[in-house]
Amino acid sequence: MGHRLDDVSAPARLAGPDEGISQEELALAARNHGIPLEALRYDVTPPGLHYVLTHYDIPYAEEDTWRLVLGGRVRRRLRLGVDELKTYPALTQRVTLECAGNGRALLTPRPVSQPWLVEAVGTAEWTGVPLRVLLAEAGVEPGAVEVVFTGADHGVERGVEQDYQRALPLVVALGDDPEVLVAYAMNGAPLPPQHGYPLRLVVPGWYGMAHVKWLRDITVTDTPFTGFQQAVAYRLRQYAGDGGEPVTRIAPRALLIPPGFPDFMSRTRVVSPGVVALEGRAWSGRAQVTGVEVSWDEGRSWYAADLDRGSGHRWAWRPWRFDWAATPGHHVLSARATDAEGHTQPLEQPWNRGGFANNLVQRVPVLCRDPDDTA
Amino acid sequence: MGHRLDDVSAPARLAGPDEGISQEELALAARNHGIPLEALRYDVTPPGLHYVLTHYDIPYAEEDTWRLVLGGRVRRRLRLGVDELKTYPALTQRVTLECAGNGRALLTPRPVSQPWLVEAVGTAEWTGVPLRVLLAEAGVEPGAVEVVFTGADHGVERGVEQDYQRALPLVVALGDDPEVLVAYAMNGAPLPPQHGYPLRLVVPGWYGMAHVKWLRDITVTDTPFTGFQQAVAYRLRQYAGDGGEPVTRIAPRALLIPPGFPDFMSRTRVVSPGVVALEGRAWSGRAQVTGVEVSWDEGRSWYAADLDRGSGHRWAWRPWRFDWAATPGHHVLSARATDAEGHTQPLEQPWNRGGFANNLVQRVPVLCRDPDDTA
Repeated sequence: MGHRLDDVSAPARLAGPDEGISQEELALAARNHGIPLEALRYDVTPPGLHYVLTHYDIPYAEEDTWRLVLGGRVRRRLRLGVDELKTYPALTQRVTLECAGNGRALLTPRPVSQPWLVEAVGTAEWTGVPLRVLLAEAGVEPGAVEVVFTGADHGVERGVEQDYQRALPLVVALGDDPEVLVAYAMNGAPLPPQHGYPLRLVVPGWYGMAHVKWLRDITVTDTPFTGFQQAVAYRLRQYAGDGGEPVTRIAPRALLIPPGFPDFMSRTRVVSPGVVALEGRAWSGRAQVTGVEVSWDEGRSWYAADLDRGSGHRWAWRPWRFDWAATPGHHVLSARATDAEGHTQPLEQPWNRGGFANNLVQRVPVLCRDPDDTA
Repeated sequence: MGHRLDDVSAPARLAGPDEGISQEELALAARNHGIPLEALRYDVTPPGLHYVLTHYDIPYAEEDTWRLVLGGRVRRRLRLGVDELKTYPALTQRVTLECAGNGRALLTPRPVSQPWLVEAVGTAEWTGVPLRVLLAEAGVEPGAVEVVFTGADHGVERGVEQDYQRALPLVVALGDDPEVLVAYAMNGAPLPPQHGYPLRLVVPGWYGMAHVKWLRDITVTDTPFTGFQQAVAYRLRQYAGDGGEPVTRIAPRALLIPPGFPDFMSRTRVVSPGVVALEGRAWSGRAQVTGVEVSWDEGRSWYAADLDRGSGHRWAWRPWRFDWAATPGHHVLSARATDAEGHTQPLEQPWNRGGFANNLVQRVPVLCRDPDDTA
């Protein structure tokens, strides 16, 4: 037996037909976490309840000595401390962030990776400097095509040793819709370690993989980036050799705040007959959510919910509500979002080998108790 | 099919011999979370990295309207708002808190419940009013034997609908070693929702189940409490009908900060040959930790680590360190704590049906790369 990285870093695979969640998947589930669904009640997710995914380790960082380098195809290389970044005009945006792998563990067959169910989401107020302001100051050279972002988290993945890196097309990096941020604050406080302290990228509307944490380098390039997280991971492939399309913006999704109270182990909900307020959130990174429907019969019938369009936060989830007349029996609640471009959520799983961008409708099993039954 | 709680709330069970982690266990792992082991580097765990376990839902609470009632076998019933509690002299204690089910998912056979590996731990500075001060003001009546604490979280568990409730013996509730707190602050800020906002109990040295969150009622009783979480759950049973001993104080445990860098999926660590600083934390709720040993050969040989005894925080974990001379090859690192009463950690699993108080030594697989090997 050799002593090589390949010994400890296996290729991607799909779980077998009857294969339960493995201890490796569980180890990821135990360190990363989703939002407890009842926390969907908050417009802005309180600290510690926002979903977290870290590929490698959370790096140890000190703000005083942290330097962000902006280089590559620019006229003037920048090297900025966090205090210097704070001298630029700051922008705060409320952004709903979702992991590209959300829903993966519900797929058949199941791609073996971070085993999310539906809860890899959260909304925060991010404060920082628009990336386009920094790029303008550095002066992007003709011929530039992409901007590569490097984080301080280091590890090996599918045999490839790497710092976490992702790129954005230059047009996105220079744009103001969405306004890409180099962020140093979350909900008005310094970034928590697990959210990228002291600096991270925020790319409103894009899945989480684009929001590079522990950001230490920004490089403008004149060739497309072919690093692992761009060319190997985060692509929508149907088979192993498929080139696939890149994962980019967030597909629409609605989630319910599970009503009533839960069973500890099954998480099945218990309600009483009568009007039960169904509430939740809906979002899309492609266009504004324009409609939410609910169902309590496993998706056979759908009813329009009241959607709140008033918040003015373009990149944040919208609350919705429906008064359900619950009757005794077993029900499965679902919600389905549609956005202004007509994208909606499928009732059959949208499968790909990475389990990415999967916005299958949520299923919330509910028992409505019969008041004449005594247990 | 009826419409009863038993339909959705099954009895406790053990996983079958080849049964992977179920989707129900995964749902608990996705909403609750452990400490990412690299966060053991912090003396006090930053917000959002401390382990969290919630039996039911996180209740929605507002500090202004919250009332804590202290009644039962007392001369004078108290009804206190959070502002009133803050007028009492405050005490701050640094406390390491561990879930009683930590390590459960590593057991064979595996009790089906929240599937912790080793990471259900964290350390915080808790600020509040000593419980004995409140009990003294209320005046405990003769004949009292226990104090029952009720939280606002409501659910059904193994068929039993309940608010979360636990009791302490009167002698513990009235004692000052440990100093039991009714806490309203964590690390100098209001409690986060998932840690019991606005009020929780803190019982230094005891497993997490005793630290009742969303505390709304304290009742002094003249009979022992027989509620679900006291008489059914949280007991050390060898078989289903076994009365079992109650789970109380935290058994000693040491954990390593995994050295080097990880593989994303297997979490195996990669280091280079030479001196590798092994660091970690060790704690016991029974007595001070007096020694930590490390091993890199699956527990066959043990070497004494340097234990820092200087912090003065009786109920917090202690840091330790050992300089390991890593050589190329595959290793399994472990650490083992011993406390002043001679309690230590077993190399063979201490099994019980609930998977409680299991302090089997941690195993951290490490690849030390051969510098002559190129991949």
